[in-house]
Amino acid sequence: MRQEFHRLIVETHGKGLNMITRHVCTWVQETGIQNGLLTLWCRHTSASLTVQENADPTVRRDIAEFFDDLVPESRSYIHDDEGPDDMPAHLRSMLTDIQLTIPVMNGSPVLGTWQGIYLFEHRRTPHRREIVFHLLGE
Amino acid sequence: MRQEFHRLIVETHGKGLNMITRHVCTWVQETGIQNGLLTLWCRHTSASLTVQENADPTVRRDIAEFFDDLVPESRSYIHDDEGPDDMPAHLRSMLTDIQLTIPVMNGSPVLGTWQGIYLFEHRRTPHRREIVFHLLGE
Amino acid sequence: MRQEFHRLIVETHGKGLNMITRHVCTWVQETGIQNGLLTLWCRHTSASLTVQENADPTVRRDIAEFFDDLVPESRSYIHDDEGPDDMPAHLRSMLTDIQLTIPVMNGSPVLGTWQGIYLFEHRRTPHRREIVFHLLGE
Repeated sequence: MRQEFHRLIVETHGKGLNMITRHVCTWVQETGIQNGLLTLWCRHTSASLTVQENADPTVRRDIAEFFDDLVPESRSYIHDDEGPDDMPAHLRSMLTDIQLTIPVMNGSPVLGTWQGIYLFEHRRTPHRREIVFHLLGE
Repeated sequence: MRQEFHRLIVETHGKGLNMITRHVCTWVQETGIQNGLLTLWCRHTSASLTVQENADPTVRRDIAEFFDDLVPESRSYIHDDEGPDDMPAHLRSMLTDIQLTIPVMNGSPVLGTWQGIYLFEHRRTPHRREIVFHLLGE
Repeated sequence: MRQEFHRLIVETHGKGLNMITRHVCTWVQETGIQNGLLTLWCRHTSASLTVQENADPTVRRDIAEFFDDLVPESRSYIHDDEGPDDMPAHLRSMLTDIQLTIPVMNGSPVLGTWQGIYLFEHRRTPHRREIVFHLLGE
């Protein structure tokens, strides 16, 4: 049993989903670990992780609209130092995932056929986001 | 330190919570691992996992109504290939859990007295859902 | 590779965020494990865990107001045995996190600069909350 670490940097360009599935699967293969447990940790409070349908781009547009209505920028927030998208970004992070832990079998995360892994950016402006990967196995 | 894998199939019959606590606890005992870390991974984007009160059925009815209002089928979605419950199912999955990781002590997950583990089905029609179990420990 | 367990009790005083970051980091250091995987499990269905900005108290007030509107006590619930905050507490737990799993490097969880770990209390009255810590590593 051994463990491996990695850091992925994702350059984002405004609100929305950034697919990272291929980065994740390639890194798992490169470690040579066949069976184990993979953890992804997003080191931010205004971006998060999520698992969603990996095929249809209309899903991503519906997600964007739904979250804009669920956590509106037009709402009155006390904390708005960095603009109207500041506090909504924190709330969107709380409602989705800051972390994912996925079993690995035969060298691959056990994702379902339609599952893609995304970094979900919640800020309007470009950001440099860091995700820590950890894999424990043999 | 060793690891075990398992796949649970849950046949669902419309929207709602399907308790899997007993399946999970029985499998952990069968592995013979006394102390470790258990991970459950739901391989879908229109069903998810959640931990909720394990006793009162009225809780489950309130949950159903709350989520029907939070993510309504009546909302206008671009992605509706599989019907009005298609896109709401993706959004409900994002708002709940696709994965749970639970410490195991003395042969059992450390669930609280009132905690039950559920597969949360978000589609109207019957589905065959697959959950991967992973246990690492000794 | 070895594993350590711990139980943290948090005495809460009404709805809101209770920071536990220092407790978590101190315990990880005390175990002497340098690199590994840390899991926190909240043993309740009316309190949860979340990662949020660790500096500005106004963020915490905005979070409180947002969740009071998202899951209102004024809504009609079937399950209200323990008062109007009973069922909303269950729903808030489902929408946030019951568990967090964080990679540990060089003796510390890989939290980002602004990330704090919180127990999120959803009930009005004081409660005694229990969180199980599990650390696997070397």
